[in-house]
Amino acid sequence: MLPFANDYSRGAHPKVLQALVDTNMDAQPGYGQDDYTKRAAEKIKTACQMPEAEVFFISGGTQTNQVVISNLLDGDEGVVAADSGHINFHEAGSIEYTGHKVLTLPGVDGKVTANNLQTYLDDWQADENHGQMVAPGMVYISYATEVGTLYSKQELADLSKVCRANQLTLFMDGARLGYALMSPENELSLADIATYCDVFYIGGTKVGALAGEAVVFTHQNVPMRFTTKIKRQGAMLAKGRLIGVQFDALFTDNLYFKISQHAIVLAMKLKQALKDKGYQFLIDSPTNQQFVVVNNSQLEKLKKQVDFSFWEIVDSTHTAIRFVTSWSTTEDEVAALIAIL
Amino acid sequence: MLPFANDYSRGAHPKVLQALVDTNMDAQPGYGQDDYTKRAAEKIKTACQMPEAEVFFISGGTQTNQVVISNLLDGDEGVVAADSGHINFHEAGSIEYTGHKVLTLPGVDGKVTANNLQTYLDDWQADENHGQMVAPGMVYISYATEVGTLYSKQELADLSKVCRANQLTLFMDGARLGYALMSPENELSLADIATYCDVFYIGGTKVGALAGEAVVFTHQNVPMRFTTKIKRQGAMLAKGRLIGVQFDALFTDNLYFKISQHAIVLAMKLKQALKDKGYQFLIDSPTNQQFVVVNNSQLEKLKKQVDFSFWEIVDSTHTAIRFVTSWSTTEDEVAALIAIL
Amino acid sequence: MLPFANDYSRGAHPKVLQALVDTNMDAQPGYGQDDYTKRAAEKIKTACQMPEAEVFFISGGTQTNQVVISNLLDGDEGVVAADSGHINFHEAGSIEYTGHKVLTLPGVDGKVTANNLQTYLDDWQADENHGQMVAPGMVYISYATEVGTLYSKQELADLSKVCRANQLTLFMDGARLGYALMSPENELSLADIATYCDVFYIGGTKVGALAGEAVVFTHQNVPMRFTTKIKRQGAMLAKGRLIGVQFDALFTDNLYFKISQHAIVLAMKLKQALKDKGYQFLIDSPTNQQFVVVNNSQLEKLKKQVDFSFWEIVDSTHTAIRFVTSWSTTEDEVAALIAIL
Amino acid sequence: MLPFANDYSRGAHPKVLQALVDTNMDAQPGYGQDDYTKRAAEKIKTACQMPEAEVFFISGGTQTNQVVISNLLDGDEGVVAADSGHINFHEAGSIEYTGHKVLTLPGVDGKVTANNLQTYLDDWQADENHGQMVAPGMVYISYATEVGTLYSKQELADLSKVCRANQLTLFMDGARLGYALMSPENELSLADIATYCDVFYIGGTKVGALAGEAVVFTHQNVPMRFTTKIKRQGAMLAKGRLIGVQFDALFTDNLYFKISQHAIVLAMKLKQALKDKGYQFLIDSPTNQQFVVVNNSQLEKLKKQVDFSFWEIVDSTHTAIRFVTSWSTTEDEVAALIAIL
Repeated sequence: MLPFANDYSRGAHPKVLQALVDTNMDAQPGYGQDDYTKRAAEKIKTACQMPEAEVFFISGGTQTNQVVISNLLDGDEGVVAADSGHINFHEAGSIEYTGHKVLTLPGVDGKVTANNLQTYLDDWQADENHGQMVAPGMVYISYATEVGTLYSKQELADLSKVCRANQLTLFMDGARLGYALMSPENELSLADIATYCDVFYIGGTKVGALAGEAVVFTHQNVPMRFTTKIKRQGAMLAKGRLIGVQFDALFTDNLYFKISQHAIVLAMKLKQALKDKGYQFLIDSPTNQQFVVVNNSQLEKLKKQVDFSFWEIVDSTHTAIRFVTSWSTTEDEVAALIAIL
Repeated sequence: MLPFANDYSRGAHPKVLQALVDTNMDAQPGYGQDDYTKRAAEKIKTACQMPEAEVFFISGGTQTNQVVISNLLDGDEGVVAADSGHINFHEAGSIEYTGHKVLTLPGVDGKVTANNLQTYLDDWQADENHGQMVAPGMVYISYATEVGTLYSKQELADLSKVCRANQLTLFMDGARLGYALMSPENELSLADIATYCDVFYIGGTKVGALAGEAVVFTHQNVPMRFTTKIKRQGAMLAKGRLIGVQFDALFTDNLYFKISQHAIVLAMKLKQALKDKGYQFLIDSPTNQQFVVVNNSQLEKLKKQVDFSFWEIVDSTHTAIRFVTSWSTTEDEVAALIAIL
Repeated sequence: MLPFANDYSRGAHPKVLQALVDTNMDAQPGYGQDDYTKRAAEKIKTACQMPEAEVFFISGGTQTNQVVISNLLDGDEGVVAADSGHINFHEAGSIEYTGHKVLTLPGVDGKVTANNLQTYLDDWQADENHGQMVAPGMVYISYATEVGTLYSKQELADLSKVCRANQLTLFMDGARLGYALMSPENELSLADIATYCDVFYIGGTKVGALAGEAVVFTHQNVPMRFTTKIKRQGAMLAKGRLIGVQFDALFTDNLYFKISQHAIVLAMKLKQALKDKGYQFLIDSPTNQQFVVVNNSQLEKLKKQVDFSFWEIVDSTHTAIRFVTSWSTTEDEVAALIAIL
Repeated sequence: MLPFANDYSRGAHPKVLQALVDTNMDAQPGYGQDDYTKRAAEKIKTACQMPEAEVFFISGGTQTNQVVISNLLDGDEGVVAADSGHINFHEAGSIEYTGHKVLTLPGVDGKVTANNLQTYLDDWQADENHGQMVAPGMVYISYATEVGTLYSKQELADLSKVCRANQLTLFMDGARLGYALMSPENELSLADIATYCDVFYIGGTKVGALAGEAVVFTHQNVPMRFTTKIKRQGAMLAKGRLIGVQFDALFTDNLYFKISQHAIVLAMKLKQALKDKGYQFLIDSPTNQQFVVVNNSQLEKLKKQVDFSFWEIVDSTHTAIRFVTSWSTTEDEVAALIAIL
């Protein structure tokens, strides 16, 4: 089966795995106090061009969203997200588990827009009963979004401006950040993101690591005793080095960006081939997820040779499916998929 | 100022208050173990024609929703509600506070329909990732709804059927149950409600009591050690008699229904007068809440003489407002309001 | 049966109930925005000689502890209490329900001492793993304590000093505050308590009200949007007037203190009679709870005529029981109890 | 520095790491649905001689305790543990975070005894107010305990009997299970543990893995939709294979037991040497943690050459410290430590 269902079906990039092998027998302190973790944090701060940033490492995306959101919101605050936001759908209610409501706005190509946000805030303010409503405390966005789209620099700047004018924390979920940054349509640098966001994470699990996400706080806004809070939420690894070593490798010689680029080049090759063959796209995605409409007889045929994701029913005879490339996708796999389609 | 803003602006119905006075110096056990509470529970069971029902008393509506929903849902389940549902908007995130997501369906005149529910359940089932989504465990409806509308008997029966076919608890918020049951358009009896719902509450706070709601479990489905659970959520009054005595009075000589009827008669009189004067209604409500569109100059004039609720902006020159009658509204107050309009 | 089991077996003090009757038909805003609630708050601030204090009203003691503690602690902090503290035993885990640990110290006559607290803090600081331990954020004390004892002025001052030196909030549970303040051994005024504590509550449920506790914040330390937080925890009454009217009455003409005094005079009369008859006391209590050791044959006899509380087994032939007086206890009841003993 | 501070200072056992390397490029489903995870589960069931067992994998010990305890307790239940239990001290309040109280019993050499448990249950039952107390729902024990001690077979059987007679779930934290099972004083097999416990976990993080614990449910007592619950608590890795592959390796050719044995042999060698040199032990531990009393001048000298853990102050001139061996400790390191001591 050709593995296009997701970007986490294989282990780690070989250089990342090699780093784990090379450092394996070095005795180090636990709980993220090891040298590798410190080194990875420094490299990330450099990549963000932000020496004052603070970096923490957490095992997975849902956990990262949960830990960051719950600790940056005040008790009665909720987090604003696009209705298609990952925290709203596919994280099993992990934000509500921490006691906070996800306040949804209609997404525009999966994005929260400054206009929609401002309207929401105005309505909330105007409601004479807003004292009995959840107060917005944060805005959650994903880059790339769950449907593979990107924010332009202007869009992110506008959103950031509305957030700052209203004391809302702007948090970016970067589970697929590498694939976003390497898109031909990307306008943002890591430094831009660090400037516009209050906190964001650089995804490792989907971009070459076995597990791990790097959370970046951009302006001394780390919650008090944050490592204790991480611990009480069960999110602290005894061998924090597991993530530190991997990010140290990913941020050496631009590995993170190179392997993301590889996935994007292949995704664009696939996209062009699909276009050439006359396929319709559900969404025009410039990143490593491609959403294609197929008729149902094709669907059945594909199932026998390709691992892909069901996305949604389009009509009684058509279905939208998702193909995903990653750092581990090969030229041959893409060629084989194109041949089948 | 004429008091039409809500149905909780005055104290208790005089007979309810008299019952508190009459029983005041009788020493009784605490925590709902007193004779009055037991007697009130018996009367409610009789009124529901359901001797096997079990009745508990809780101070207010938000607290009741919170205690019932959180203790009847399994850990990872959410509660389905209309997007206009009280638990979704005006209870400050009290359900999410208990760790559960409110799963919203588009309301039809403020109602959850069997069709919308079935579609939602089918979609959830069809999603190959539903193992990473909040599982529906309960359906929350209000009777009357937040916008004053009613379920027909058929609508409730259909909804109940879908719930039972899918192991979903059907919970009715009856904060304004008296006003619903006395509406000229009502088709349901308390016995019908007890038959179709798994749990519901009979609102006291808005229908003649100082505080208190009566929760009815209809088929031995009370959570284990429920009083301990009520206690740990801070919802147990030491002097449980406060609520028991009031419901004992409300369910003596049909007081609950008579005083609700009073409010409905006045609401219908107001509605007819508004119609006669050519006012537009935002919603056609057969209960004690009337939603009327006024132009903004009228709005300003009204503000000086009447307490009403702002509901929503209709257009740049019109606003929808809400007038509410209650057990305590007088004929004179309605006449005065009609005169002003 | 003579009612000595607790101090919440009857309704409200007649003057409190009369106030509810007198104000009943006055239409007022909901959610604690009514005039009576405002007036009660003003009277309490005057009684505390602290015009800058801020006062909130909540229905019961467990709920008050829950709302205050959970909203004043930071996420990973716990609350320090004596092992006999009410929040540690008889509130069904309501603090843990909000996600916070109760950190227990051995009580000295039911009290947290400055020395024990300092030792605990030193040990916590010294533990190199305290980053993986719950951080103390508040100290919870009761006045009177759960075993009827009192803090001296020096004891409270010392405790307050340790708290302030360590950024710990000092919170006093005053469920029986009236009975403490009127004890012959009391050294504290309301003003002293307001000075030494960061937040405390004045109990109404056990001191003449049907329900209600008045929380006093002493130095602009009310949590942001506190009423919204109260609402989301289900602790906001629509008819907030129910509590406001009662406290307005309790703090008119020193009613709160006079009725507490009444209970204390009777408790001291009972205590003296028990002493004279040669009874042993489990604890030497100067307040309205008296803990007496009886032999088991007496115990059985008493059960037939008196409602009291079982406290603990002393040895195979003796049991400690509790007699409680209140604002509603009569001279005749005490005389009858003494006659039986 | 000689690494004796803990058992998680190095990476993975070389064979475990090699398994990660060998399987790295094999595309597999996510979220624990991969072949390696399934194979590891089968091997563990075989090792437990319990084909009907069900096995889940979670990243770390605190997270495992949190997920298991919170999902097996009913809402208002608490978990009984020794006061020295890991969940009570060094997990930052992670159980309370989930809303449940840790109910502590005085540990006997760090153990919960059947007698202490029975007494606790009797007292709880006898308290007429136990409806207002946290109900015990589970017993948590550690094997080896936090102070390195072991339960005898009889002790575990007795405890299991009391638990089953009282509908209490018996849960064993096996963070150091390998080191316990390989102790010369161990009387238990994995099959015994599976028989006596309702759920337990086999620790990987401290026994040769980079991360990961294997939870074993012994009698179809897995919570409904457990993987969704794991997800909502942030404890689900996208690449579940990371843990599956490692446990597959650990349970191949008895690797788990062999490497545990290695640590125990070295711990016993160290223990004997310490005895021979006349050192006092704080606790007589037959496992890989050794608690030794040193005088404070020795302490300072040791600090320069050895990484160890501070345990507690014994008196003004003596301190108890902890030396820990692991699968990665070498003969040379132990020899060097003995030479220094």
